[in-house]
Amino acid sequence: MSSPTADPAPRRRGRPVDVDPERVALLALRHFDEHGYEATTMDDIAELAGIGRRTLFRYFPSKPALVWGGMEPVVERMHAVLDDASPDEPVRDVLARAITVSLDLSPDALEATRRRLRLLGSDPALIAFGLSRLNADHGMLADFLARRLGEPADGLRVHVLADAVSSANFSALIWWARHDEGVPAPVAVAALDALLSRWGG
Amino acid sequence: MSSPTADPAPRRRGRPVDVDPERVALLALRHFDEHGYEATTMDDIAELAGIGRRTLFRYFPSKPALVWGGMEPVVERMHAVLDDASPDEPVRDVLARAITVSLDLSPDALEATRRRLRLLGSDPALIAFGLSRLNADHGMLADFLARRLGEPADGLRVHVLADAVSSANFSALIWWARHDEGVPAPVAVAALDALLSRWGG
Repeated sequence: MSSPTADPAPRRRGRPVDVDPERVALLALRHFDEHGYEATTMDDIAELAGIGRRTLFRYFPSKPALVWGGMEPVVERMHAVLDDASPDEPVRDVLARAITVSLDLSPDALEATRRRLRLLGSDPALIAFGLSRLNADHGMLADFLARRLGEPADGLRVHVLADAVSSANFSALIWWARHDEGVPAPVAVAALDALLSRWGG
Repeated sequence: MSSPTADPAPRRRGRPVDVDPERVALLALRHFDEHGYEATTMDDIAELAGIGRRTLFRYFPSKPALVWGGMEPVVERMHAVLDDASPDEPVRDVLARAITVSLDLSPDALEATRRRLRLLGSDPALIAFGLSRLNADHGMLADFLARRLGEPADGLRVHVLADAVSSANFSALIWWARHDEGVPAPVAVAALDALLSRWGG
């Protein structure tokens, strides 16, 4: 959204600049991959992105936020599908659609997601940072399943199934980031179908 | 196991003493509940348990270890059932038996488990500490499911189903600690059956 040709004023240090947070996150994730997550500082990222330290912290208040930041739009898209689904559409189909829509990513976002998940799969402390955000995910799935199964949202069954769907989705994405070169949605939908298939009997 | 009557030597500071780690963990967990996890120091716990700071650290190298410590025997008992199960026993029954055996707890362990899970349910950072241990859990479930489903242990389906079973079990225990006054095994088995039941169609 920054438009240098329309704005000929010279850039000074500290002057507010337009920042594309997705691009900053992608640069950071590439740098983590090359130089290690622990070894990278927020100052390294600011320099790499050509922005001031203060600007970086306004968008990403911490290093884990650079890793988790991109998850939010994914969760929001899933939320929208679950909220608007017709009661006639089977639960499996709504969930599969929610997964597919939530994982419809631009090429940059796809690369960022893969790097993000590889990093998460290697560092439990990073997963912890995102758990509270994943709780939002749990709440929306629980509400959806409660409505559709006609059971209380705080009951055991809804609680467990919402966590299982969440876990299957996250687990499929971690698997995809390591093993699959394509797009993630078919892998995540296959995981949902594995969960729903008869496999324990 | 300490036997003061058979050992009349006076106790000195720093002298090794026999310690019951389960009792120490239970005292700590009760103290966390009353005074708050953050507000409690390792020194508080050592004093409460009547042992030296160094002894406490030998058994529990950190405060999170006091919360997670008791999970290990549970995972070991589950492991033993999965390893020894006859190939004729249905997967659901083996898993239900592994859950039930792993959750056969003494009254003290039951109380500690409930307090532990309530604390975990309230603090994502504490969950993170245990995630690497839960990974051991994932590995053993994945091996079992790979054997029984005749699929590769590093394939998507086994990876996702192992995580879903793990997640359903953990999620059921968190639910139990909050909502149920009885023993945990029937709740965890009900969660497994909810997972295996037809609910998405």
